[in-house]
Amino acid sequence: SSERLRLRSLEAKIMTAEEAASLIKDGMIVGTSGFTPSGYPKEVPMALAKRAEKENIRITLYTGASVGDELDGILARAGAIAKRMPYQTNDSIRKGINSGEIEFVDLHLSHMAQMIRCAFLGKLDVAVIEAVAIREDGGIVPATSVGNSPVFVEMAEKVIVELNESQPLELEGMHDIYTPENPPHRKPIPITRTDDRIGTTYIPCNPEKIAAIVLTNRKDSVRPLAPVNECSRKISQHLIEFLDHEVKRGRLPKKLLPLQSGVGNIANAVLKGLVDSPFEGLEFYSEVIQDAVFDLLDSGKMTIASGTSVTPSEEGLERFYKNINFYRDRIILRPQEISNNPEVIRRLGIIAMNTAVEVDIYGHVNSTHIMGTSMINGIGGSGDFARNAYMSIFATPSTAKNGAISCIVPKVSHVDHTEHDVMVVVTEQGLADLRGLSPRERAREIIQKCAHPDYRDALMEYYKKAMDMTGSAHTPHILEEAFSWHINFLRKGRMI
Amino acid sequence: SSERLRLRSLEAKIMTAEEAASLIKDGMIVGTSGFTPSGYPKEVPMALAKRAEKENIRITLYTGASVGDELDGILARAGAIAKRMPYQTNDSIRKGINSGEIEFVDLHLSHMAQMIRCAFLGKLDVAVIEAVAIREDGGIVPATSVGNSPVFVEMAEKVIVELNESQPLELEGMHDIYTPENPPHRKPIPITRTDDRIGTTYIPCNPEKIAAIVLTNRKDSVRPLAPVNECSRKISQHLIEFLDHEVKRGRLPKKLLPLQSGVGNIANAVLKGLVDSPFEGLEFYSEVIQDAVFDLLDSGKMTIASGTSVTPSEEGLERFYKNINFYRDRIILRPQEISNNPEVIRRLGIIAMNTAVEVDIYGHVNSTHIMGTSMINGIGGSGDFARNAYMSIFATPSTAKNGAISCIVPKVSHVDHTEHDVMVVVTEQGLADLRGLSPRERAREIIQKCAHPDYRDALMEYYKKAMDMTGSAHTPHILEEAFSWHINFLRKGRMI
Ligand SMILES: CC(C)(COP(=O)(O)OP(=O)(O)OC[C@H]1O[C@@H](n2cnc3c(N)ncnc32)[C@H](O)[C@@H]1OP(=O)(O)O)[C@@H](O)C(=O)NCCC(=O)NCCS
Ligand SMILES: CC(C)(COP(=O)(O)OP(=O)(O)OC[C@H]1O[C@@H](n2cnc3c(N)ncnc32)[C@H](O)[C@@H]1OP(=O)(O)O)[C@@H](O)C(=O)NCCC(=O)NCCS
Repeated sequence: SSERLRLRSLEAKIMTAEEAASLIKDGMIVGTSGFTPSGYPKEVPMALAKRAEKENIRITLYTGASVGDELDGILARAGAIAKRMPYQTNDSIRKGINSGEIEFVDLHLSHMAQMIRCAFLGKLDVAVIEAVAIREDGGIVPATSVGNSPVFVEMAEKVIVELNESQPLELEGMHDIYTPENPPHRKPIPITRTDDRIGTTYIPCNPEKIAAIVLTNRKDSVRPLAPVNECSRKISQHLIEFLDHEVKRGRLPKKLLPLQSGVGNIANAVLKGLVDSPFEGLEFYSEVIQDAVFDLLDSGKMTIASGTSVTPSEEGLERFYKNINFYRDRIILRPQEISNNPEVIRRLGIIAMNTAVEVDIYGHVNSTHIMGTSMINGIGGSGDFARNAYMSIFATPSTAKNGAISCIVPKVSHVDHTEHDVMVVVTEQGLADLRGLSPRERAREIIQKCAHPDYRDALMEYYKKAMDMTGSAHTPHILEEAFSWHINFLRKGRMI
Repeated sequence: SSERLRLRSLEAKIMTAEEAASLIKDGMIVGTSGFTPSGYPKEVPMALAKRAEKENIRITLYTGASVGDELDGILARAGAIAKRMPYQTNDSIRKGINSGEIEFVDLHLSHMAQMIRCAFLGKLDVAVIEAVAIREDGGIVPATSVGNSPVFVEMAEKVIVELNESQPLELEGMHDIYTPENPPHRKPIPITRTDDRIGTTYIPCNPEKIAAIVLTNRKDSVRPLAPVNECSRKISQHLIEFLDHEVKRGRLPKKLLPLQSGVGNIANAVLKGLVDSPFEGLEFYSEVIQDAVFDLLDSGKMTIASGTSVTPSEEGLERFYKNINFYRDRIILRPQEISNNPEVIRRLGIIAMNTAVEVDIYGHVNSTHIMGTSMINGIGGSGDFARNAYMSIFATPSTAKNGAISCIVPKVSHVDHTEHDVMVVVTEQGLADLRGLSPRERAREIIQKCAHPDYRDALMEYYKKAMDMTGSAHTPHILEEAFSWHINFLRKGRMI
């Protein structure tokens, strides 16, 4: 319709997904919209995957972050992905990554746009962008996520747009697209409040670059959220108690500071906990806007939510669409180089809450690798936020795999967040405040507050033995035993 | 003299170092000026150390970074330091840290000021600041470094000033003191060019807080620089060739981008190499201004140098004093929360060059710990720069201890900079460009380009075996063998 495609001359570019996909050739670098299973193209990747069954096609795929199975999954299963950046959560991609079939480059989500703009990651051939509309000037109105779409549109040779009628036109106005100039000409990013709008409501695009338009009404494959379990509820309680304590000590304002929250069940539980907390006037400056944020906005506890993607559950999506005018005034979707920008994160003073896979007794965090080798998802935005936060918090259950694994270990098998970037660790057992503590002091705090009772003594034993053997060195470790828990698990299925 | 102490009423506060030191009591938190052996107080710490021989005095000592032996060394040897932040390079402190006597908290240098201002690190009792003058309004004109002095003066209960007549009055005007507000009221830091001046030439101070003034003419204990050796010269050559190549590819402007350089001999060699390079109009936005920067400024190759400290060798200091008016126009000394600020570093697009202790085949960097346990110095500003740089480079000789240690290892024994923050690794053997490479691709690049030939095959063997044993996982490791090289070294004095 002319509401969705407002530049008449582009009507000639409407074609089938197969025709559009034929613009993508073997060896190309393709950048797509999408951040979480939200706002990613579906028709063109599906057509491409079909072609890849008969033809030799292996592409490099860049996205915002994870995307839905109709993009990552089917292309991976068709063997059509040679290289993937900067984040993923797809079973088939993960399998490819951990079996040498897909080269995966795990990047800080805020870093990628500049790396592309400065030609560090090769020349982008094609951008494939899901949109709710194309404006008279060629400007692309994104769907429910922004991600890296602006830089892909800017830098790609050709742009394919999937105009998705299942995405309501009322999304228009929710986005705030701003592109920083390259150094040395960059100016300050003029966000000084969570609700500042600094850019356009669309991605600027020279209409001549738009090589194909595919019409669709296929919906995003949103994911269900598990109900809040006891463990997550306890973590949430410890955290809210801690924040309250910090307010009482004058180290946080009464309305807190803008919150960032990772994705997944713990993150959702923490946010849900805030609905019943005493805090008012909350702000959210984060990546992904999940169901709990709707609760907070609805209850009036939260006044504004800034992110790069809206990713509700099925019910959440319905609720979002139904009240879209209410939410459009309270949600801002920014490019991920802005939502995750160190400059803005530090200026606003974010309280960053992210999830760890394992934490060691000295406060180093592994967010990505199982037993030091196998990639789960990627670091995502956790580093952007943790490093620059006013307060950097990592949460994890104290155990995994029904207690066979302690998530507090002598030494993490992979480091994503160093001791310098971790102020608080919280498990269902309790909360360790590491600010101003040396490694030796941290060890005692983490073991006592966070470790599961079944592992506490063994951790303390390692620590004491390491103290003895190193003459109380700065970070006592016994290299022969540092990974023995992981090795035990790999051999016997239990860490101790 | 009234040139140095311009507020007459403060003359009553002039006292001996012993009297001033008596303001410092057991258990206090003391913040001092000083960043490298430059601009740190000497008389008061020496008097305090004397008292500590008879009295039980153990303080928490905060500084900018490392300081001279008259502060760190003598206090440590007197047993007067219980806790130390955020960086050090002193033999006696290091001994204390690695024997359980001193609790050391290793922090990103840009992070500390905000942590103090927001009361994360306790209440500062006393600040001891070396100065060249005190103004009529109480404002303190620092000596050759700024470091954390502004926040110490702001937050301490009492301020002791060491007015040092050995530091020329002509330093006045070289400093640019700017203090960001706390979140959520912070505004953009208005630096958009290396040579922007945004603050005052002195540290604002309520004169009533000045509790003591000690007069001295004791000089800083500057350190000699070793002559440039063959290894450093080769590293410098590889790097300059690489930068040149990046300019040719259009990924760097002809005059490059502002340079940051770590301290020490390799860093000095790289900068010296630039004197004979084709580059013109260079800028320096870094922490520490060493001799080679004077060479670059003298030759006209460099137009401006911004840092938080001037730390020349003995000859360098003479040269600096002799041409101080020339240098004052070309050098800006800022608080370390500004010199190292992620916002500014990312905006300007810094080329960051730091030194690694060891690097692993997947590109993780250890900058601080010997064999994973023993603290050398600390992370310093390397994380501030590496994470936010336009281009993040780490240099190291390929071997240490006469070849008994390979600085390229299967897995680093401690991580300070993760794979996400390391774009380039360079040794005297060659340079590995890791941008856009997966861990498996990085391993081949690092082993081939950077490892010493004596270790290359063994590294490749580990990599291949790890590939086999993990089924080509994302980051192939054999946890049983990952630290075997370090363990060999500890047992037999050789890594292989
Ligand atoms: C860390 C992260 C994987 C946790 O996600 P989650 O959904 O809460 O994780 P789960 O508890 O379901 O654990 C995921 C898997 O790892 C396993 N696991 C958890 N802890 C483990 C440990 N210490 N060792 C080994 N495996 C572990 C779980 O058992 C589960 O495996 P399964 O799928 O076979 O059951 C996820 O938050 C993530 O990818 N974070 C990095 C990116 C990020 O933080 N993004 C947000 C920034 S805004
Ligand atoms: C990494 C760092 C220690 C290197 O400094 P340097 O003066 O070039 O180092 P050296 O080559 O003299 O090595 C220091 C010691 O470590 C030893 N060493 C070097 N590599 C080693 C390795 N891989 N394993 C074990 N020991 C090693 C050296 O033999 C030397 O020991 P010695 O004093 O007993 O002879 C130093 O740059 C640092 O502290 N960096 C972190 C902070 C930083 O980067 N600051 C600047 C940011 S602006």
